[in-house]
Amino acid sequence: MTKVSRRGLLLGGAVGAGAAAAGIAAGRSLVDGPEPPPEPVTVEAFHGPRQAGIATEPQAHGVFCALDLREGTDRDATARLMRLLSDDAARLTRGTAALADTEPELATSPARLTVTFGFGPGLYAAAGLASPVAALPGFAVDRLEARWSGGDLLVQICGDDALTVAHAQRMLVKDARAFASVRWTQRGFRAASGTKGTQRNILGQLDGTGNPAAGTSAFDTAVWRPDGSTTLVVRRIRAELDDWAAVDRTVREMSVGRRLDTGAPLTGLAEHDEPDFAARDELGIPVIHPSSHVRLARVGADDKRILRRPYNYDEGPSAEGKPDTGLIFASYQADVERQFTPIQRALSDADLLNKWVTPIGSAVFAVPPGCGEGGWVGEGVLG
Amino acid sequence: MTKVSRRGLLLGGAVGAGAAAAGIAAGRSLVDGPEPPPEPVTVEAFHGPRQAGIATEPQAHGVFCALDLREGTDRDATARLMRLLSDDAARLTRGTAALADTEPELATSPARLTVTFGFGPGLYAAAGLASPVAALPGFAVDRLEARWSGGDLLVQICGDDALTVAHAQRMLVKDARAFASVRWTQRGFRAASGTKGTQRNILGQLDGTGNPAAGTSAFDTAVWRPDGSTTLVVRRIRAELDDWAAVDRTVREMSVGRRLDTGAPLTGLAEHDEPDFAARDELGIPVIHPSSHVRLARVGADDKRILRRPYNYDEGPSAEGKPDTGLIFASYQADVERQFTPIQRALSDADLLNKWVTPIGSAVFAVPPGCGEGGWVGEGVLG
Ligand code: HEM
Ligand code: HEM
Repeated sequence: MTKVSRRGLLLGGAVGAGAAAAGIAAGRSLVDGPEPPPEPVTVEAFHGPRQAGIATEPQAHGVFCALDLREGTDRDATARLMRLLSDDAARLTRGTAALADTEPELATSPARLTVTFGFGPGLYAAAGLASPVAALPGFAVDRLEARWSGGDLLVQICGDDALTVAHAQRMLVKDARAFASVRWTQRGFRAASGTKGTQRNILGQLDGTGNPAAGTSAFDTAVWRPDGSTTLVVRRIRAELDDWAAVDRTVREMSVGRRLDTGAPLTGLAEHDEPDFAARDELGIPVIHPSSHVRLARVGADDKRILRRPYNYDEGPSAEGKPDTGLIFASYQADVERQFTPIQRALSDADLLNKWVTPIGSAVFAVPPGCGEGGWVGEGVLG
Repeated sequence: MTKVSRRGLLLGGAVGAGAAAAGIAAGRSLVDGPEPPPEPVTVEAFHGPRQAGIATEPQAHGVFCALDLREGTDRDATARLMRLLSDDAARLTRGTAALADTEPELATSPARLTVTFGFGPGLYAAAGLASPVAALPGFAVDRLEARWSGGDLLVQICGDDALTVAHAQRMLVKDARAFASVRWTQRGFRAASGTKGTQRNILGQLDGTGNPAAGTSAFDTAVWRPDGSTTLVVRRIRAELDDWAAVDRTVREMSVGRRLDTGAPLTGLAEHDEPDFAARDELGIPVIHPSSHVRLARVGADDKRILRRPYNYDEGPSAEGKPDTGLIFASYQADVERQFTPIQRALSDADLLNKWVTPIGSAVFAVPPGCGEGGWVGEGVLG
């Protein structure tokens, strides 16, 4: 993350626009006298060997928007679409208006905006290419609804300012419209940006403890392929919050294997203590239940682990006050079948948490590498 | 707004819980050695002669939740409900768990949480009381849908942390459930907290310039009755953003009478310059169109003005990429008929902006005064 001054960005823009403008800008900055303290604009770089929005410290707001290519959108057309969307994303994430942006003022506060693109199996099929990802197998827990599942092209938009995120979404969807229709949109949130430590999810749990830490080799092994690509699984998982809240904390903690207050494993004291799955109480009963979420989801080798980057959703209560809420579970992993599927299978079969959570949507995307300045996401696939 | 340390709050809580706990807490704080810098918790006071969430600098997230009293919820039952909800609100807004809060950890970061209650005509009827507010008359522009209109009891929940807001909503709705069903919920957002100056709305306009400024007598005259009560109008106003974006900036600026970039009136240079409605161009045409939004909405006397505290909504695009977005327009005024209705009538009849905006929901509430510690909102009405 870089902090650059808005003024710097504007000058940069002016310089790009031509020598005359550059002269004016430079002249102005010389005669201005004492500068007002620059307003910091927090920018996450769009360009790079890997796409942003994955290793990026999660932002407060996330929108996942799945598009379906229109009949006849072939490889060339999809390439044109990705050129356009990459250009939009590059501009919007650095706080400048998209080309043909009709509300350019809504772009000036990127607030760590990131735009991440994923390609579904249908995109590869339309382009006449073999897909590196396949739809997930069915799991016993699944109660999938078509309206939250599948999609040819995923646009993940994350940022700390909900207005900026909404504007970026509108620009991207608008430019995609000639090529694709909207299949589904899921909007989520996490605790406000700046909240220290592991976030809590809408169930009240510390969520993210077991993630490989950004910047470690464990992270790189779990998430990235050598070419900078990865994969993304998005699952909409409804949570029965009323039932969850109705059972006492001991039961809720048992189902996960961690404490609700500190996030510590039931065998430890601090959040990052290693769970001791062998530990037994005086009666010889395992302290961490063998069917607890953490026991079943825990895998040893780094190349079996996944990076979870979920958002909470909350669509407001029904007339009877029943919440419509849960997680937009999003995980990144180098290989879906090697990493995600075995964990999901283990959870599906036995997870105590299943009593309160139900997958109602599911989609899988290949996430191409990032691109350099002037390049576009997917150039290595479609170019 | 007060900043208190989380540590202080926790100690305060412990002291409240009894002498033994207080002893431990005090003991600990003596032997702790150098204190870690306290994490600031930003609290908006719930108690006071006027309810919070009105003069409060608007927070980034807002939920408006309208409840309908169940058959047979009479004056006494409604009083019990308001006692319960006031207690919840007092606790949640200061960063402590509601009674019977099952996820107390989700309450610890209030982030300027406010809870504001409004009473609809139906609540007064159920209590056998004369209502100080009546439903609005119909306006020619209205395309009202029942699912966004009316309601006996409004709970407005605002805060800078979406997770805290969602949790507070769940606690309040849960405690209301025995007395009331949910009629509608509207969730909105504004630019991230900390954004300097007047916010922009989802149409890209600076929105709020013409508001009476908090802390002035103009504000007090417009908003408060002597007893600390006021009224709230909530209108869901759909914006046709595609059509809006399709017309050029000159037309958009003409329709409002202000510039999109600076928010300045078309007769001025800076946002807060007074519009000059008499000014004409070289051809003798008024510079600010007589049917512009600002011309029609401008009223002279302070007791005719309103305080607008709107949120943007954005429910995501349709399959064809059409945005479902607009304003949750919320205005506070001492008297609906004297202040809101004439402005809305003038706008309904002629506003150039009507081409792009359509009211699809409408509700009116009396907002009782605030309450002191141990009191409850509505005690002067129902007590
Ligand atoms: C609504 C559904 C879910 C909830 C509420 C949930 C919650 C949690 C919680 C509280 C933890 C412990 C803290 C942490 O490490 O983050 C955890 C760990 C984990 N979860 Fe989930 N989870 C859900 C779904 C899933 C799914 C669908 C998967 C993958 C298929 C998954 C995989 C994992 C993994 C890999 C861990 C870390 C295990 C370790 O310690 O190595 N979770 N989850
Ligand atoms: C989606 C619908 C609306 C939009 C987009 C909108 C937008 C705006 C904008 C851009 C301004 C100028 C800047 C400012 O003073 O804030 C303004 C002013 C104003 N609007 Fe609206 N508005 C809407 C609906 C309404 C409604 C329904 C009312 C009341 C019935 C209203 C009452 C006012 C008032 C009183 C002013 C200030 C006029 C003055 O300068 O004294 N607006 N509005």
